[in-house]
Amino acid sequence: MTEQHPAPSRVAVLGANGRMGAEAVKAVEAASDMTLVAALGRGDSLDQLASAGAEFVVDLTVPESTEANVRFAVEHGMHAVVGTTGWDSSRLAALEALLAKHPETGVLIAPNFALGSVLASAFAAKASKYFESVEIIELHHPDKVDAPSGTAVRTAQLIAAERAAAQVPASPDATTSELAGARGCDVDGVRVHSVRLRGLVAHQEVLLGGPGEQLTFRHDSFDRASFMPGVLLGIRNVAANPGLTVGLDGYLDLGV
Amino acid sequence: MTEQHPAPSRVAVLGANGRMGAEAVKAVEAASDMTLVAALGRGDSLDQLASAGAEFVVDLTVPESTEANVRFAVEHGMHAVVGTTGWDSSRLAALEALLAKHPETGVLIAPNFALGSVLASAFAAKASKYFESVEIIELHHPDKVDAPSGTAVRTAQLIAAERAAAQVPASPDATTSELAGARGCDVDGVRVHSVRLRGLVAHQEVLLGGPGEQLTFRHDSFDRASFMPGVLLGIRNVAANPGLTVGLDGYLDLGV
Amino acid sequence: MTEQHPAPSRVAVLGANGRMGAEAVKAVEAASDMTLVAALGRGDSLDQLASAGAEFVVDLTVPESTEANVRFAVEHGMHAVVGTTGWDSSRLAALEALLAKHPETGVLIAPNFALGSVLASAFAAKASKYFESVEIIELHHPDKVDAPSGTAVRTAQLIAAERAAAQVPASPDATTSELAGARGCDVDGVRVHSVRLRGLVAHQEVLLGGPGEQLTFRHDSFDRASFMPGVLLGIRNVAANPGLTVGLDGYLDLGV
Amino acid sequence: MTEQHPAPSRVAVLGANGRMGAEAVKAVEAASDMTLVAALGRGDSLDQLASAGAEFVVDLTVPESTEANVRFAVEHGMHAVVGTTGWDSSRLAALEALLAKHPETGVLIAPNFALGSVLASAFAAKASKYFESVEIIELHHPDKVDAPSGTAVRTAQLIAAERAAAQVPASPDATTSELAGARGCDVDGVRVHSVRLRGLVAHQEVLLGGPGEQLTFRHDSFDRASFMPGVLLGIRNVAANPGLTVGLDGYLDLGV
Repeated sequence: MTEQHPAPSRVAVLGANGRMGAEAVKAVEAASDMTLVAALGRGDSLDQLASAGAEFVVDLTVPESTEANVRFAVEHGMHAVVGTTGWDSSRLAALEALLAKHPETGVLIAPNFALGSVLASAFAAKASKYFESVEIIELHHPDKVDAPSGTAVRTAQLIAAERAAAQVPASPDATTSELAGARGCDVDGVRVHSVRLRGLVAHQEVLLGGPGEQLTFRHDSFDRASFMPGVLLGIRNVAANPGLTVGLDGYLDLGV
Repeated sequence: MTEQHPAPSRVAVLGANGRMGAEAVKAVEAASDMTLVAALGRGDSLDQLASAGAEFVVDLTVPESTEANVRFAVEHGMHAVVGTTGWDSSRLAALEALLAKHPETGVLIAPNFALGSVLASAFAAKASKYFESVEIIELHHPDKVDAPSGTAVRTAQLIAAERAAAQVPASPDATTSELAGARGCDVDGVRVHSVRLRGLVAHQEVLLGGPGEQLTFRHDSFDRASFMPGVLLGIRNVAANPGLTVGLDGYLDLGV
Repeated sequence: MTEQHPAPSRVAVLGANGRMGAEAVKAVEAASDMTLVAALGRGDSLDQLASAGAEFVVDLTVPESTEANVRFAVEHGMHAVVGTTGWDSSRLAALEALLAKHPETGVLIAPNFALGSVLASAFAAKASKYFESVEIIELHHPDKVDAPSGTAVRTAQLIAAERAAAQVPASPDATTSELAGARGCDVDGVRVHSVRLRGLVAHQEVLLGGPGEQLTFRHDSFDRASFMPGVLLGIRNVAANPGLTVGLDGYLDLGV
Repeated sequence: MTEQHPAPSRVAVLGANGRMGAEAVKAVEAASDMTLVAALGRGDSLDQLASAGAEFVVDLTVPESTEANVRFAVEHGMHAVVGTTGWDSSRLAALEALLAKHPETGVLIAPNFALGSVLASAFAAKASKYFESVEIIELHHPDKVDAPSGTAVRTAQLIAAERAAAQVPASPDATTSELAGARGCDVDGVRVHSVRLRGLVAHQEVLLGGPGEQLTFRHDSFDRASFMPGVLLGIRNVAANPGLTVGLDGYLDLGV
């Protein structure tokens, strides 16, 4: 799937001292079709990107600085792959306006770089309209402060939208006597259950059920390394996708 | 594990027209060490048990009649294996008083005949004190009216008791922001999640987690046939266990 | 997803006394948008299809009779949904020639009517090119005579083709010391493991692995009822798809 | 489960520079009822154990040095917890002879310190005699050179012994047509399947099946941290168990 490059792509990593950034530095260095030309941390000047001749910028910084970083990249004709959060609708609108003036530059903003997670959510949503019942179980380490996870909420929303468009009725549920919380929480009509267990990292199951059958999509993230194939895939495809793309699935071949 | 019998055991089934009873009739007929000597339904006289020469009575009737059935069996020196619910503490006390006068007769009252389910609950409880975290997920068909299932409640209680005795602290949980119900219900300090999905029958997972590891016990009941090995095991062991035994685990060799 | 019919579709079932056929009879009778107009068994005359005014014919018979059944249907302008095996390439060619003369008639030949199974295979193949490793585990009841299952072989072939097209290298495997059979069998470079266990029906897992993550697709068939949503979906879509369609996935909306 | 110590136990770690040893150093330092008094690497003199006043020695070295290390500890009245391999029957016999002269000193030699793994194997073996069918699936990273894993072989042997003692027949299997390897390898009559997948660490499932039901024991090791609770449990119990104990299960309360 790797496109052939006559010369290695020149990649810079911003936020290189953070945990994700450090992984990205290693991943770029290990990729035979890329060269790491800069690895910037907090306080380093963005001018180094230009002097290093970066063609691609990977932004894994913090919400406070990501917008300025991406703006710098686009204004200098560098493509950007962004994993930092904080991109609300007004920031996205401003970025699109900027990109309109740089029609050959691409930016990917991806809330989730785990390929398996992105694929599982997309496929589960697509399949969910063929089944009577759907529920989600997400499982994380017990130090997580929010329940359910953001990924589970997004997956439930995707599923709910797909089922609504196909006019699938709500999942059947005859419960009349419930100990409070047993049936999980409700996200757009989809029940979501959050397990917290020492030893786990980040895991999610989508369960679909029909008469006599079950279809399950399960994704396990065991460590941060799982995000790196998605980061590399982003770098390899962002130049061929000028303008703004939100979500890694925009670069994936999911049609069956 | 079958004890050798010089002649096949003479077994009668009460409630033979019910769904469980009909399965029991088939199971006894198929067992080479048993002979079915009577299959009684609603309205049939218990005197047929005596005239048929039954040694063992399997009661799979209704709460209204089970006590009289078992009393009749014990008074006639027949051992009884009982799957009917409704045995509260006063009924159990009366039965024990009766058995004291018939010291060679055995009665097994089992709320759950699924061997795998009984084993899973017992082992999970025993193991739970060696792990920081424990949660339960039970999954059933969507026509079930109560959540969580009775089996899940009993399993959680067994686990809570085992952990309390070993002075294990509560499972860690840093959740500060929760969509109502996401973290399941609380049974004696154990989180229980109830999934309802078309196509399922009755399933349960106990998840134990510690640093870097997870131990999972999963039981799947696909149909009522799953209860029959437990019924047969009950018949084969009840004579060697005079007096009252509550719970199939009383006959199982679980010591490791 | 149900297309609106002004009047219920008139459906005939062939092989109505077989196990699959009997299920289909029940499913058609239960569908509000269909009317069962004929249920034929071995020896019944096909002329009854015409006299009953059937618009749709469901063939769940035997390899010896399926070709004549479908030919009769097509020649009488009836759409056919076929679950019977035995359609080799020469039979398929003859059927396509016949359909060329009846351009408004549709025939669906589906080796597998379990929606979940078809979806899982299609999605797993599509996703497999994004992961270093792929293996398949199929699990069935112990009375099955062949290993691996036909579905597992087809899934492996789909995966192998998708990975070959994307030039993905073989799954890594450092095994140098193997107890014969431990690593399963090899189907087009994909390892397949066959479990046989009392209590199971038909189950399959596709496991995809990359650095730090795993993506799993699992399908469980608990009983024959699982095929009926696929049969009904076939009936509801065959008229809108004139000509020959092989495989239920031809009617599914799988593009993401 | 922690026994109360009036003063923290004085613990030394041998092999402290190895991967397991480094984890053990951290685990002992973090345990409130222990004090790390020495951490020795290759070439360090064992005399430091005595001068540091060690009461407990954790040996995580190499087969070449473990015997001398343990002998030194026992001769100096220190209890030893040993995770190093290489203890064949002649070494064990020599150690028992030595311990006979030091009747108050305890030694634990444990081939596996993962509590969950030890528990899963023990429980699965115990439960296996109540089911018609049993198979094992072990799943590891693709850099592993042997298949099946040593743990899977030992689990299969435990299961085979338990079933033989209870005169349980072989698992049923009607396979007559097999693609070579599909049905896994055979360890004492138990089928074992080995999956190798990038992203995995060490995982094992024991599947038990009977009519209409399945019981599954699954253990996941996500990283080496999973061995540390077992090491600490060993240190906490070795003094109360003088003489030689082989296997962590000797210290576990598994009776149900």
